[in-house]
Amino acid sequence: MDDLETLPEAASDNDESDIYGDDGAVKTSYLARVGAAIADRDVLFLRSHVGKLHQSELGHVLEALHSEQRAALVELLGDEFDFASLTEVDEAVRMEIVDALPNEQIAEAVQELDSDDAVYILEDLDQEDRDEILAQLPFTERVRLRRSLGYPEETAGRRMQTEFVAVPPFWTVGQTIDYMRDNDDLPESFSQVFVIDPMFRLLGAIDLDRILRTRRDVKVEEIMHETRHAIPATMDQEEAAQIFEQYDLLSAAVVDENERLVGVLTIENIVDVIQEEAEEDILRLGGVGDEELSDSVVSTSRSRVPWLVVNLFTAILSASVIGLFDATIQQMVALAVLMPIVASMGGNAGTQTMTVTVRALATRDMDIYNAGRIIRREASVGLINGVVFAILIGLVAGLWFGHANLGGIIAAAMIINMLAAALGGILIPLLLHRFGADPAIASAVFVTTVTDVVGFSSFLGLATWWFGFK
Amino acid sequence: MDDLETLPEAASDNDESDIYGDDGAVKTSYLARVGAAIADRDVLFLRSHVGKLHQSELGHVLEALHSEQRAALVELLGDEFDFASLTEVDEAVRMEIVDALPNEQIAEAVQELDSDDAVYILEDLDQEDRDEILAQLPFTERVRLRRSLGYPEETAGRRMQTEFVAVPPFWTVGQTIDYMRDNDDLPESFSQVFVIDPMFRLLGAIDLDRILRTRRDVKVEEIMHETRHAIPATMDQEEAAQIFEQYDLLSAAVVDENERLVGVLTIENIVDVIQEEAEEDILRLGGVGDEELSDSVVSTSRSRVPWLVVNLFTAILSASVIGLFDATIQQMVALAVLMPIVASMGGNAGTQTMTVTVRALATRDMDIYNAGRIIRREASVGLINGVVFAILIGLVAGLWFGHANLGGIIAAAMIINMLAAALGGILIPLLLHRFGADPAIASAVFVTTVTDVVGFSSFLGLATWWFGFK
Repeated sequence: MDDLETLPEAASDNDESDIYGDDGAVKTSYLARVGAAIADRDVLFLRSHVGKLHQSELGHVLEALHSEQRAALVELLGDEFDFASLTEVDEAVRMEIVDALPNEQIAEAVQELDSDDAVYILEDLDQEDRDEILAQLPFTERVRLRRSLGYPEETAGRRMQTEFVAVPPFWTVGQTIDYMRDNDDLPESFSQVFVIDPMFRLLGAIDLDRILRTRRDVKVEEIMHETRHAIPATMDQEEAAQIFEQYDLLSAAVVDENERLVGVLTIENIVDVIQEEAEEDILRLGGVGDEELSDSVVSTSRSRVPWLVVNLFTAILSASVIGLFDATIQQMVALAVLMPIVASMGGNAGTQTMTVTVRALATRDMDIYNAGRIIRREASVGLINGVVFAILIGLVAGLWFGHANLGGIIAAAMIINMLAAALGGILIPLLLHRFGADPAIASAVFVTTVTDVVGFSSFLGLATWWFGFK
Repeated sequence: MDDLETLPEAASDNDESDIYGDDGAVKTSYLARVGAAIADRDVLFLRSHVGKLHQSELGHVLEALHSEQRAALVELLGDEFDFASLTEVDEAVRMEIVDALPNEQIAEAVQELDSDDAVYILEDLDQEDRDEILAQLPFTERVRLRRSLGYPEETAGRRMQTEFVAVPPFWTVGQTIDYMRDNDDLPESFSQVFVIDPMFRLLGAIDLDRILRTRRDVKVEEIMHETRHAIPATMDQEEAAQIFEQYDLLSAAVVDENERLVGVLTIENIVDVIQEEAEEDILRLGGVGDEELSDSVVSTSRSRVPWLVVNLFTAILSASVIGLFDATIQQMVALAVLMPIVASMGGNAGTQTMTVTVRALATRDMDIYNAGRIIRREASVGLINGVVFAILIGLVAGLWFGHANLGGIIAAAMIINMLAAALGGILIPLLLHRFGADPAIASAVFVTTVTDVVGFSSFLGLATWWFGFK
């Protein structure tokens, strides 16, 4: 234990460099110290060090601990356990910790959280537990959380924080500042003050720096800006994120169908949304659904099957194209050896074009004004690279099999397939997008089907015709 | 023209719903109105409507206009042209507009911009133009911009804004507020006030909401928080973004090697970084480098070649594996028909695993604590899905060629290749990461090489052995 004795002070500095190693993961020495403290039920150490960590740091520690250590740590920390850390961990870890706690304790903890964090924890619980917890909350708290939970997943209403600062338009800057000084019940942090009428209808908003720059006797209605970026509670979170990005917002009012202020979306929430949406695109392009690292083997297997089934069908389709030319292959086995090269190069080139297209559509960089130009560009790129690689593979194949005609045929097939790859790579996502489908989901399988079918049929077809087989 | 006459008022509302259509692109009717005004040199309309757009909206309009219209619009808008809109457009569009303007005019405009926007525009210019523009700026402005430009691309120093509010520790909250009320030279917007010593060394920071909640007679040093998230100017922007995300920061101090405050990184800049980095990962996974939609055909072709060359080598490698079994194929052409199915299914499964792994590494969700568990999980998933698809393809192939043994062989090869895909999909990115390479760049080609080689060799090898060919 001696070598661990130096750690406590370091950890009490609460400096990130102390709990994280160079690789960005929690240091094993720190984990060992925490593990030992849990085993010794050293409440003093745990509360004074682990209890002081930032919620995200505590989240990392929880994830790195063993399952049985987690429950013990939460129990030992008692009131010092920061429930907000549960918003930072994997769903499986969160559920495990929450399930182990009595609903009374969760209800108590939830009251301390900002409403967006509370919703984040409550939304994954089953209906029964959730109702039991909500029933134990004070009336206003319960109403607010129920309202957030009533909005569909991935909407602004579900993501918003219901704590905000709102003042009437006739107040002065001085009154507003005095109100904030005297009121203990403000949100933990905020970057805007909203201006509302007696019916809670949103009139405007003022950034805090604006308040600080203005004389005390000025009325808030004179300095508020009209909130043209008020976000309907039912708006999809991705759309809300695009508005934040376009207009560089730090926070935005969320309004219900009667234009009444019901909450605030903060950039912290939006940063998470941006990450999630980019993540979703990457996973979808890779043929993976909404899976988490903590998912079980069975659920992971099952979630990946649909995509593999689709691929099986398209692979059988490509195989049956080859089957059409079995007599040709019988007479020249070199064709079977070379044909995957044509298909593979096409698949690769098609994936390149498709990736660029899917991204440009997601970020709205591609629209009706430049689609035509980009299609022409991709076709030209496909043709140029087709010619370049036709020459290369033509030489390789000709020399390998000592057969100049074979080199010529694979070269011609390569040009055809690279052009097909370029057109498929751009037109397939565009068409999917046009018909309201997410191009990230289905483009890859269609593009490689095109390049496989065109690759095999052009190469084997040209060979059959040229050599006059059959 | 009559039907366009209704637009001006709509546009003067400056409401986003007016310039954007349902598809999120700028409405063609709006563009036509702007185009007509440019053709008529209708300065009044342009300044009062287009000149009032948000910088991002003006950026979208510029991108949608024809090349010659852009230059005319900028000229007609004159002083009303918001140079910040240039930070919102594609690099090619920006360069086109900037190149058309005299350096004097750019120098004048740059002084009006926040320093981060100014740097964004200046960094792409060639050395000569940049020096000429900098030479025309006032001394302090020039020094600040030169300092930012002196930091490497993609660092915090290059991204930071050099305008900030800083006060000494002995000031009271009241003094600080009065200073902000009286000073006209504050940044356009800010969310923190920094506390510095006479040497400009950073002592702490205070969020604006904290200032507003505190009595006037309290000293700032009493309410400032120590800035443990001060960011060294040379830190990579991706690392800075991770700190923002982890600690939910709205802004952070940037310090030089002597701990002196040199600028501030804002969440607006960081949101752009997060987008860029996610984008980079997606493009790299798709085998595309750092390309833009506006790049020319030649530069696009050239940038995609390296990846295709690598793929050509690996495709030839796979082909030579097939070449080892040419005698076998000669005796049973069905093998040539079926072999791409085994390779394709493996490629797909491997890509799924690889995508999950690359993302988990990028978001630091995977680390030494869970790597072992995830490797075991992926191997199990590969085995389970291998068995599922082995049964399916075994039945299909057996029935298709009326040959039960062939079905058994492809089934066995499928299990082997799906297991290889799972292991390759996770171990290759892990190894690349371990050796300091970005797994997003090179994983895909290695993984599909593994699944092609294992797929072809296991299937053809098993067939050769089972049927006793050769």
